[in-house]
Amino acid sequence: MSNKPIGLLDSGVGGLTVLKAVKNRLPDESFVYIGDTKRCPYGNRTKDEIIRFTLEMVQFLMKKNVKMIVIACNTATAHALEIVRKKVNIPVIGVVKPGSVAASHKTETNNIGVLATVSTVDSKFYVQSLLKQDEKIKVKSLACPEFVDIVEKNAYESKEAKELVANKLADFKEKEMDTVILGCTHFPLLTSYIQETLGENITLIDSGSVTSLKVEAVLNEKKLAGNKNHQNTINILTTGPEETFREIVEKWLETKAFAINQVTLERLEDTNEKH
Amino acid sequence: MSNKPIGLLDSGVGGLTVLKAVKNRLPDESFVYIGDTKRCPYGNRTKDEIIRFTLEMVQFLMKKNVKMIVIACNTATAHALEIVRKKVNIPVIGVVKPGSVAASHKTETNNIGVLATVSTVDSKFYVQSLLKQDEKIKVKSLACPEFVDIVEKNAYESKEAKELVANKLADFKEKEMDTVILGCTHFPLLTSYIQETLGENITLIDSGSVTSLKVEAVLNEKKLAGNKNHQNTINILTTGPEETFREIVEKWLETKAFAINQVTLERLEDTNEKH
Repeated sequence: MSNKPIGLLDSGVGGLTVLKAVKNRLPDESFVYIGDTKRCPYGNRTKDEIIRFTLEMVQFLMKKNVKMIVIACNTATAHALEIVRKKVNIPVIGVVKPGSVAASHKTETNNIGVLATVSTVDSKFYVQSLLKQDEKIKVKSLACPEFVDIVEKNAYESKEAKELVANKLADFKEKEMDTVILGCTHFPLLTSYIQETLGENITLIDSGSVTSLKVEAVLNEKKLAGNKNHQNTINILTTGPEETFREIVEKWLETKAFAINQVTLERLEDTNEKH
Repeated sequence: MSNKPIGLLDSGVGGLTVLKAVKNRLPDESFVYIGDTKRCPYGNRTKDEIIRFTLEMVQFLMKKNVKMIVIACNTATAHALEIVRKKVNIPVIGVVKPGSVAASHKTETNNIGVLATVSTVDSKFYVQSLLKQDEKIKVKSLACPEFVDIVEKNAYESKEAKELVANKLADFKEKEMDTVILGCTHFPLLTSYIQETLGENITLIDSGSVTSLKVEAVLNEKKLAGNKNHQNTINILTTGPEETFREIVEKWLETKAFAINQVTLERLEDTNEKH
């Protein structure tokens, strides 16, 4: 039993989709969420930058005395998950494997689509992860960096967003494809437009909700679950301006019971020599 | 009706005694508290510094969209209350007048003691405020800067604290004195030692609890009280390290339902020319 908070990190607001899923599944837990809005999007950053930024957020969360870290960002998971695991002595969960496992269970045609950032697509981490589940799986990936931008600027319910998704995904679906992984935590905020464009027969895999199952399993396994009578808190931090972030949190988490503050991350030296 | 938070500011942890009193009286409100631990104590600072630091915290709180500001620090109230009131268009409450009013009502001998910081004693703000209530009142003041230090380092329940209070106040009480104002928000954390030293016949006035009545009255008057079904939050910010601050908050507020974060205040230019 532990009443310490669960830490989540993301490049910006996208990881809130994971926070929402975990919070709904585990209402007795406290959370510290750090979104690096100032440097978002990570999807167009170099691998070394992504690793350093992620480690800076990990260092920040460790000072908050978290009992577990969820890398609620596909790009950061793809490049930094194993490095983070070596650095800290608490459980670290990424969003790629839970999504891959769920998709491989769901597909009947072994034909899976992945929508992600440039960097996640380039890393081939989803392809590897899916092939580990079943080597017969065929994967078609598409980098959709524009989706991140429109979500970060809180325009994910706009007509502009609807058209952007429709244009971008017009030719994405192939005949055999029956399952599509939303391989960036920003994309669940565009779910309705994505579903509309790809059609009702496509199953969308939102890594947030499958990751929440993994978080619950690890808490139980490690005996780290929070006490039911615990007074839980949601502590949201951003490296960028608070206002847009606050609006998205309120709308997306459907609660006002959170604190939000702007913080500065301590800079780490370049980490390239260490891995 | 307004569900915006109430903002409180203090040089460090002292104002938590005011937060506790206001929170207990007004459980439906949300709070943002900023303690400038990094530059604490204010009691030994110049007047210009105190004004600038206070205005920096006011600016910080205004960005948090607060509906009211409580200057939960006697030193800041003494030097900056009127200046702050001219700067912002929301209600601003200090801790000196509520304490003076309460003490003047309580005393039967018109003989009141004031324990405060060097700067508050020097400002003569309590003497003026008490004489406004009743010009027959005699005031004896004592600067106790050591009390602030021992509270800030979370040693306010130690043997060292007990001895410090006993020595400092050994000769303070005069025959006619029946009421003593704890004229620094840090001092209520030393209440039991102060009461023990001065004797049970002395009534101690804790500005926190009297200020909470004032806060309630102003919220009602301005129709700014929070909705009963509101999901309230306590957002604690400090300019210094989080750990000691967190321990004092947990112990003093008797809750773990708060978020705490370290923040940096934006520097204002020297304000001496403006007042």
